[in-house]
Amino acid sequence: MALGRDYHGQDCGMGRALEVVGERWTLLIVQNAMFGVRRFNDFLTRLDIPKAVLAERLKHLVDYGVMEKRNYQGSPPRYEYELTERGRELWLPVYILTGWGQRITDKEAPRTFHHAECGAQLDEAGACPNCGSVPIEKVEMRPGPGPKRTDPVSRAMNRPRRLLEPIVREQ
Amino acid sequence: MALGRDYHGQDCGMGRALEVVGERWTLLIVQNAMFGVRRFNDFLTRLDIPKAVLAERLKHLVDYGVMEKRNYQGSPPRYEYELTERGRELWLPVYILTGWGQRITDKEAPRTFHHAECGAQLDEAGACPNCGSVPIEKVEMRPGPGPKRTDPVSRAMNRPRRLLEPIVREQ
Repeated sequence: MALGRDYHGQDCGMGRALEVVGERWTLLIVQNAMFGVRRFNDFLTRLDIPKAVLAERLKHLVDYGVMEKRNYQGSPPRYEYELTERGRELWLPVYILTGWGQRITDKEAPRTFHHAECGAQLDEAGACPNCGSVPIEKVEMRPGPGPKRTDPVSRAMNRPRRLLEPIVREQ
Repeated sequence: MALGRDYHGQDCGMGRALEVVGERWTLLIVQNAMFGVRRFNDFLTRLDIPKAVLAERLKHLVDYGVMEKRNYQGSPPRYEYELTERGRELWLPVYILTGWGQRITDKEAPRTFHHAECGAQLDEAGACPNCGSVPIEKVEMRPGPGPKRTDPVSRAMNRPRRLLEPIVREQ
């Protein structure tokens, strides 16, 4: 059944949040940007979605101030997408939802998340058990025991790395 | 563009989470259950969505163990829906996304959220600034300064109340 994109008539911030990040795949795009994916083709490699869907989702995120689009090559023109402050503020819901979804699978996690300064694994709410709240820039992602994708972008993530650090594909 | 409901090929918990709660309106249904809505017609009153969409979303949430369906009246049969433990675990992402969405509107919040035991307003991450993490059962919702819906279910929310406490409509 068709439903409009917006949530007119809802009185709370959740309706607004879903207008911006509630479309299918959008939170996975935001999550991959947190993992360091910036280039259109790298998002495509990680997500297996049609180009037109990815382009539409990225444009929507740029329009709503969640990502910035930047030209990084002139000829042919190539763009990368980086999370704004507003986009980085989605870290905790992305982290907590990811953990929640992982717990209802029968698999182990492909990646674990740690406080870069003390090494402790973040708790279910995204805090460091030793030091309290951790900004996204201070989170280190490490390969976990669970199964992982084998595409080149996923492989480039497969070492300990800070969130937001740009992915460099193997050549 | 049509996209399947599932996220086969994604290696992380976010794909799974979105399979369960990523459909349009689903997180608003979960949020309203946290606010105390339990009955089909009360969800309908708050959300202005077609009955068939609401019924499909509730069935999906029951199928995935996020809500339980319970018969509360025999003839005609009537059902209510209550969050399971798995569903209540979505409190923090729901709270944080709601605050994030609120901050990108130009309106004040219709409701504020407090630690019931000390009265302090929760911070952006859903913790009490005095006491630390707060389970959903210990959160008190209070009417905020922003505009509110005027339907009977929304009016019944319009006093300080604990989350999960069942809504009783005005007669």
